[in-house]
Amino acid sequence: MSVSQYIQKHEERMVEELTSFLSIPSISSMPEHKEDVHKAAEWVAESLQSAGLEHVELVETEGHPIVYADWLHAEGKPTVLIYGHYDVQPAAPLDLWNSNPFQPEVRDGKLYARGATDDKGQLYLHIKAMEALFDERGELPVNVKFCIEGEEEIASPNLPPYIEQNEGKLGADAVVISDTSFIEPGLPALCTSLRGALALELSVKTANTDLHSGVYGGGVPNALHSLVRLLDSFHDETGQVAVEGFYQGVPEPTELLKEEVAQIPFNEEQTLKDLGLQSLYGEEGFTFQERTGIRPTLEINGMAGGHHEEGFKTIVPSEAHAKISCRLVGEQDPDEVYRQIEGHVRRYQPTGATANMKKLITAKPVSLDSSDPMIQKAADAYEEVYGTRPLFPKEGGSIPIVENFSRVLQAPVVLMGFGLPSENLHAPNEHFHLENFTKGIETVATYLKSLS
Amino acid sequence: MSVSQYIQKHEERMVEELTSFLSIPSISSMPEHKEDVHKAAEWVAESLQSAGLEHVELVETEGHPIVYADWLHAEGKPTVLIYGHYDVQPAAPLDLWNSNPFQPEVRDGKLYARGATDDKGQLYLHIKAMEALFDERGELPVNVKFCIEGEEEIASPNLPPYIEQNEGKLGADAVVISDTSFIEPGLPALCTSLRGALALELSVKTANTDLHSGVYGGGVPNALHSLVRLLDSFHDETGQVAVEGFYQGVPEPTELLKEEVAQIPFNEEQTLKDLGLQSLYGEEGFTFQERTGIRPTLEINGMAGGHHEEGFKTIVPSEAHAKISCRLVGEQDPDEVYRQIEGHVRRYQPTGATANMKKLITAKPVSLDSSDPMIQKAADAYEEVYGTRPLFPKEGGSIPIVENFSRVLQAPVVLMGFGLPSENLHAPNEHFHLENFTKGIETVATYLKSLS
Repeated sequence: MSVSQYIQKHEERMVEELTSFLSIPSISSMPEHKEDVHKAAEWVAESLQSAGLEHVELVETEGHPIVYADWLHAEGKPTVLIYGHYDVQPAAPLDLWNSNPFQPEVRDGKLYARGATDDKGQLYLHIKAMEALFDERGELPVNVKFCIEGEEEIASPNLPPYIEQNEGKLGADAVVISDTSFIEPGLPALCTSLRGALALELSVKTANTDLHSGVYGGGVPNALHSLVRLLDSFHDETGQVAVEGFYQGVPEPTELLKEEVAQIPFNEEQTLKDLGLQSLYGEEGFTFQERTGIRPTLEINGMAGGHHEEGFKTIVPSEAHAKISCRLVGEQDPDEVYRQIEGHVRRYQPTGATANMKKLITAKPVSLDSSDPMIQKAADAYEEVYGTRPLFPKEGGSIPIVENFSRVLQAPVVLMGFGLPSENLHAPNEHFHLENFTKGIETVATYLKSLS
Repeated sequence: MSVSQYIQKHEERMVEELTSFLSIPSISSMPEHKEDVHKAAEWVAESLQSAGLEHVELVETEGHPIVYADWLHAEGKPTVLIYGHYDVQPAAPLDLWNSNPFQPEVRDGKLYARGATDDKGQLYLHIKAMEALFDERGELPVNVKFCIEGEEEIASPNLPPYIEQNEGKLGADAVVISDTSFIEPGLPALCTSLRGALALELSVKTANTDLHSGVYGGGVPNALHSLVRLLDSFHDETGQVAVEGFYQGVPEPTELLKEEVAQIPFNEEQTLKDLGLQSLYGEEGFTFQERTGIRPTLEINGMAGGHHEEGFKTIVPSEAHAKISCRLVGEQDPDEVYRQIEGHVRRYQPTGATANMKKLITAKPVSLDSSDPMIQKAADAYEEVYGTRPLFPKEGGSIPIVENFSRVLQAPVVLMGFGLPSENLHAPNEHFHLENFTKGIETVATYLKSLS
């Protein structure tokens, strides 16, 4: 049976399997879900085994396990390493979900669940592509290795050393990752640039306890006022990041790059409508595509202090916390940017407040060469299945591990995404279009055959 | 038996009773504690009854009940109305308490529990004063009415209409309230000025859902950035409130007032040490006592947005909320200040963000005449029991109901506090010095006898 016939015949079962994968709340950042994360790792290992892969291994780490598997009988043929992650983001705020994030539900051709598009759905389609290829020809067209982690959403603390120590075992002619998005429905993308990342926590402390605002209000420092002032100082009036030195290493976009970025279709009106926004906002002098693709950012991702729950407490808060992340480009180094922010916080630290910082995540920016044959053949495969040749956008997101794979294995990384930008990744009502699940299986199979 | 002998003999039992009162988690702002609040009301009613008061009544309201009781057999003698509240603040954050806030514990002569000083301890000493007076003389020296509410911590929504409708029933020659503090241990205070209050919630909304900061970061408005910018605009560099019109109606402090305020003892070094502060902070050109006593303020009491729990979510938050309160003085009107803040928010509303406000609490500032004989006799009573004549400070806090009592009943309000400023009211480890519980009973009894 051909791969496409096989997919058609087994689609229902494959979606059921994905549903059971998505039912495991493998939230890597929450200690209370540690067992669930392990369960998801075992689930992946079993599904690799039953798809026909060999040497399936659960590699325990100090955190969550890495799943390895391979099939290396295509003598003289190239080797492809497939990477993905089985861990997911937290699901909160739960009240904004229309269905339970861990009881997947198909509505209107979309499978709703935490992790549906990021990354369980996009990972599982690779495993199903192997199954279909084995069915079609009794073997795989190329050598294949799987290296699947459970810590992508917590910045992969244990995968980089594993890659360094297993350079030989993981060696490949291309690393294939499906954890990115199409430009829009029907228009695939092979991302050729990823922004780097730096995530940190910034805390402010004033008194040793919250104080009554009637008794002390107006006379003592307020931790929330202090944090608000600090946070507000991070951007100037033009939307630029006001941290000294921040733009060092950020390349001035060339006319060619600007043209390339401008080619990515973008419908402002539709975007505003989809996101429920009144207007876009960002650094003056740059387009939306530039701001989100090739410019660095500093965003507050979360913040809390004082009494913010139900009811009202007339207190002067003594503590306040913010979580901040930067997207980095060009030669920006996350550790250097962290030091710049530390300097900024020291300079702007408000009277009577002590600020503390904690580094959470770092990832260097990555640039890939779109003319590499391994990437061009992926474009051919998309074109064959979708009837449209993909674009090569600069993605705003960060997949920290891409830099490690690229550097250690000295292999091109093929960012073969099957998500859509509207699929609410990291947000309530995350979903995955099932059309791209099945077409994804076909595209991956087509790609591997073309490398043979 | 004299009042002081009675107190000595029954002290242990009285503290046990107060302990059982404090064990009821009567948090008026939390709907899940509605039954507890009712239980506390019943507890107060029973204790008034058993102390010898008559016409004990539980007045149901749309919220929590008012407890009324009286004893009106002192013909030709003045009438005193005693007000207090049996509801308490929420206890969070629980992890900062050294003992359970609702399992009272005596340590080092202090009774630790939520509500110990605010206001259950200070209320209960009045009830025990009645008991001691009945024991001493078989009757009370003056006519006494009790009007105790359970909604003080949620800004007394139902008491003002009750006062208006029961002007005759509540009529008195003085209203006595024990819900304020000494200046310091051994130095009592009869507060003669209370700041007004305005509390509100300010929310900002941008997109219809949180967005992935990798995909959209830098290109769309961030609700936390917007709220941070708005909040930071509320104060200028000198610590003044930057809301247009805010200082209208704020009297320029006269030299006399400044002198009076300066008389309130204040040890900066000790305060910094007690509160664990590096430095004080406030409006330039004013002392700590002025800033906290006679100047208006705007404080952020709580704030939250985005992912602030454990773990990290790379999102652009679409919603953020802040709770804000102002302390008002002189002729400042809370409703007018609310409109000024609305205007400020409209003017400073950041691009792409929609700000919404909700009024939570309003209270007008109050000024009392310290030369009133009902207040001077209270000072005499303190002097007799404590050996020190009290000062007449301007309190920074707000007791919204004082203005209602004063206006409707046309009676002087005697703010006869027995708390200490260090007793952590509204904060973890709230406590009440038991010395002031027993001396408070004696002071109240002495005061009422002096009015006879």
